[in-house]
Amino acid sequence: MWRTIQPLGRAARSGGYFRQPFASAERELDAWFVEQAGAQRLRLETDPFGNRIAWWDSGAGPGVVTGSHLDSVLDGGAYDGPLGVVSALAALEVLRDRGFRPARPIGVSVFVEEEGSRFGLACLGSRLATGATGWEQARGLRDRDGVRLDEAMASLGFDDENPQPWLGSEQLACFVELHVEQGRDLVDRGAAIGVASRIWPHGRYRFDIAGEPNHAGTTRMEDRRDPMLTYAMTALAANKQARVAGQRATFGRVDTQPNSTNSVPSAVTAWMDARCESDEGLATLVETITRQAEDRAERDGTRLAVTAESVSGAVDFDPDLARRIAVDHEDGDWPILPTQAGHDAGIMSTQGIPSAMLFVRNPTGVSHSPAEHAELPDCLAGVDALAETLERLAS
Amino acid sequence: MWRTIQPLGRAARSGGYFRQPFASAERELDAWFVEQAGAQRLRLETDPFGNRIAWWDSGAGPGVVTGSHLDSVLDGGAYDGPLGVVSALAALEVLRDRGFRPARPIGVSVFVEEEGSRFGLACLGSRLATGATGWEQARGLRDRDGVRLDEAMASLGFDDENPQPWLGSEQLACFVELHVEQGRDLVDRGAAIGVASRIWPHGRYRFDIAGEPNHAGTTRMEDRRDPMLTYAMTALAANKQARVAGQRATFGRVDTQPNSTNSVPSAVTAWMDARCESDEGLATLVETITRQAEDRAERDGTRLAVTAESVSGAVDFDPDLARRIAVDHEDGDWPILPTQAGHDAGIMSTQGIPSAMLFVRNPTGVSHSPAEHAELPDCLAGVDALAETLERLAS
Repeated sequence: MWRTIQPLGRAARSGGYFRQPFASAERELDAWFVEQAGAQRLRLETDPFGNRIAWWDSGAGPGVVTGSHLDSVLDGGAYDGPLGVVSALAALEVLRDRGFRPARPIGVSVFVEEEGSRFGLACLGSRLATGATGWEQARGLRDRDGVRLDEAMASLGFDDENPQPWLGSEQLACFVELHVEQGRDLVDRGAAIGVASRIWPHGRYRFDIAGEPNHAGTTRMEDRRDPMLTYAMTALAANKQARVAGQRATFGRVDTQPNSTNSVPSAVTAWMDARCESDEGLATLVETITRQAEDRAERDGTRLAVTAESVSGAVDFDPDLARRIAVDHEDGDWPILPTQAGHDAGIMSTQGIPSAMLFVRNPTGVSHSPAEHAELPDCLAGVDALAETLERLAS
Repeated sequence: MWRTIQPLGRAARSGGYFRQPFASAERELDAWFVEQAGAQRLRLETDPFGNRIAWWDSGAGPGVVTGSHLDSVLDGGAYDGPLGVVSALAALEVLRDRGFRPARPIGVSVFVEEEGSRFGLACLGSRLATGATGWEQARGLRDRDGVRLDEAMASLGFDDENPQPWLGSEQLACFVELHVEQGRDLVDRGAAIGVASRIWPHGRYRFDIAGEPNHAGTTRMEDRRDPMLTYAMTALAANKQARVAGQRATFGRVDTQPNSTNSVPSAVTAWMDARCESDEGLATLVETITRQAEDRAERDGTRLAVTAESVSGAVDFDPDLARRIAVDHEDGDWPILPTQAGHDAGIMSTQGIPSAMLFVRNPTGVSHSPAEHAELPDCLAGVDALAETLERLAS
């Protein structure tokens, strides 16, 4: 399976992946998933948002669902998302080979736009399916080319005028997402597999800074209203504040208008990704950075507006479920550890579906990068761990 | 004339102009120029680079040429370039109405890609025509979409395999460019018209900063190699150093890879525009900023490369020519003043063609911006001043 999907959406230059939702590479992966579901004789369920669940119908009651996503960040790694989907399909094969008969249905899921790389809202598919975000609020989201979400979806046949959330604890007994670790905690602990305890609160904040466009050569430095200066100070302040507080803040995306070498820019728009251990810590961090940016804007004569595009509170995964998954293995207990990354499992959890995550060791901790990696033995250990988990949960 | 060209390449959103060379709006302006030349029965000369001179053949010997450019920076103003072309055509009408018989040919010129907004090298048309830059060096320049200069030109029929420079003092007795002032010196002096003394040395420097792409949430602040931080500090340092030295330095263009909100960037490329009163001052300014950027790159664990994409030394316009133009007018002498902006007249001057510039008052000094402006009476004064200048030089 891995070999088939490896070339899809891969950029020759960096070796990184460009698998944006509702666009060609991601659609090829979606078609590959449909094919795999067919080959395993799973019943495919597709919702009005493009999310898929391939069901192994067996037993009765709400199902145990495992899966991840097939989209990527821009220039992302091979493992973030696909590892969870491939491992889920492989785990089902393992269970079938063992002759396991589930007491309840087992589903393999793929949720769309988990990364938010195209429409800016992470976990979009699981948000819409569970109703965490409403369709009326989401349909007008635009990508960088100005294409609206509802237009992009309608062009692929997802043109339901009024699609409804449908996913809750009546359908799902629990949700388990396997994911490559995005840090080096498992390396430090010498463990191949871990279980998630919680997700840090995190958010995306858009900084719109407006200045006064002018000639870069003839305008005296003291006559300028240069939004680039306000932005530059803000990016440095965000880094410093996060460092001091032991938290995270990153400016990874910036758009400059008109982005011309010999012009003082008219406007700079930049996006900050911020994450903290606690909800209060996140609010304080963003406030501090915003206040410093405002002070600088005043000195620069620019105008600043900060918009929280999405903020996710802390997610505490069901501790009983995590323990049930983590304990009593041949190699002892698997470590239970927090993550700073958002996931569909976090959305499920806040929407009342008992959820858990399995992490597969990442030797460098690097993620959202072409260099993201997991060793084959660890990936195979992940498949075994997931099979064992499903067996426990669906028996 | 002004009404005809005003809508071409104008963005409804900002009111600014997007007239990039060898692309639609600029080509419409070129077609308009050809039409105007025909209407005035001027003989049109087109060189292999797309530059145009419309000749009023009269008298003998090398000609007096006046003109400017029709391309714009991204989201630029209406006056920078077109004012000089329209004024030149209007001045010829004035002279003809007066029954003036030139003792030598008078030409109206349009040089391509003066702003360097598409292929990154300012004054490209005049550089190629005079040989200040060789075709072999320029043909491989690429625009932001990766289109090569020679490809863009060939698609419009400019496909000479080995075009040669042709423009020198044998063809041109002198060159005069009328331009909207890009500053407020004339406002301060209460004068509608000024004459250029010199152009400050200036250059464009590309800062390529490479870091290590990673996950914005899970990567500890101290484990990062974030090129955005190196860039941000450099932008602030450039501003500070230029301010301290009474010079100019601007970062108006920045490209981030992969430009994704939840990733630490892999690379940031940014362009600095720097200008100083003296060549030594420019070298010192760029050195100081580069050194500070290097220090910061070392602290950030990033790699920095600085490339001078174009550097133009100081241009001292022919002082006798400037005086000949500036003195003995009804309203007294016109002020003679320096400019920080590069112009085709500067290229001509360094290539041995006696050159001069007329500036038309700009009430706000704003340029390279939709807000760039000149009052109608000042524009008409500019036409009169140019007609008078041509009369003096071609008698």
